[in-house]
Amino acid sequence: TMLPEKAKRVFEGVLFDVYQWPQEMFDGSIETFEMLKRADTAEIIATKDGKIMLQEQEQPGKPPFLCLPGGRIEKDEEPLEGAKRELLEESGFVSDDWSLFHSIEPSHKMDWSIYVYVARECKFKQDQHLDAGEKIQIRWVTLEELLDLVDSGQLGWIEQDFRVQCVRAKYDRLSMEELKRKILE
Amino acid sequence: TMLPEKAKRVFEGVLFDVYQWPQEMFDGSIETFEMLKRADTAEIIATKDGKIMLQEQEQPGKPPFLCLPGGRIEKDEEPLEGAKRELLEESGFVSDDWSLFHSIEPSHKMDWSIYVYVARECKFKQDQHLDAGEKIQIRWVTLEELLDLVDSGQLGWIEQDFRVQCVRAKYDRLSMEELKRKILE
Repeated sequence: TMLPEKAKRVFEGVLFDVYQWPQEMFDGSIETFEMLKRADTAEIIATKDGKIMLQEQEQPGKPPFLCLPGGRIEKDEEPLEGAKRELLEESGFVSDDWSLFHSIEPSHKMDWSIYVYVARECKFKQDQHLDAGEKIQIRWVTLEELLDLVDSGQLGWIEQDFRVQCVRAKYDRLSMEELKRKILE
Repeated sequence: TMLPEKAKRVFEGVLFDVYQWPQEMFDGSIETFEMLKRADTAEIIATKDGKIMLQEQEQPGKPPFLCLPGGRIEKDEEPLEGAKRELLEESGFVSDDWSLFHSIEPSHKMDWSIYVYVARECKFKQDQHLDAGEKIQIRWVTLEELLDLVDSGQLGWIEQDFRVQCVRAKYDRLSMEELKRKILE
């Protein structure tokens, strides 16, 4: 959800900025409404030889988790540019066949978009270049394995509309064919 | 996700508090990490005569949307107590057969739990008691109608694990039977 124009920043954090504004209620009274702003993020469905790239990721102070490659889009970047940079830094892979799968605003209370991209037929270019706060192992899975991991909850930290599409595709043949077409063909 | 013990509150907002702490990275360097805290919330799967309660809700400055009844749990409330209060305020209904469907921490970066409850065989007790920031119409749907609304994206602002279970139940007979058992039987 986008911030209203009259919203004013009342706190600037490391990840989150807080905005407030006076909002007229249905009875004419005024209350202070609040929303957050964070950097937009990208998640990448990266394919190679009919398989999809997953990451086994560790971050300081958290248990390890599985996710798609991706990360924050910088202020001066276009979303696709940020997605390409994150994929290269985190995996060392590049693609010359990118498309937007979809973009989502996951919260009513946050100015935050997630861009999900498909990067087809990735090629290895150079070693990973990780932050001091990242440990990442790359793993390639088939589409069927991806759907099983999502359906069983082992791959839960992904954009939630894509998660829903994966579960639907696991149980519905037509949805599976459509997802396969969008990702692998 | 819970806040680490050493986290300190650096901003207190209307909905969101911001916490920061010094986090040691994998290379021994220190960075400032940040997380949010917001009030836990409850969502209620309220049933009556084999149907489930939905809300057509309007809030100031937003387009109307469909959702489950629910809301914020106050500081001095147990989650179940808050769920009962929200259901009564928003719909005027009560139940004497409550159970926890599940509870979820939906974000890595927020101290925030969502409690999803089932409230069976609800009975009308009194008129709605709404905030100045709420307009709510009650609507009862069958489980099949609920699954269609979730699957088609018309009921997207619900707790996301429950959303996934609804989509799975729409396409998988066994999951449907299990969901029916948990909600309606």
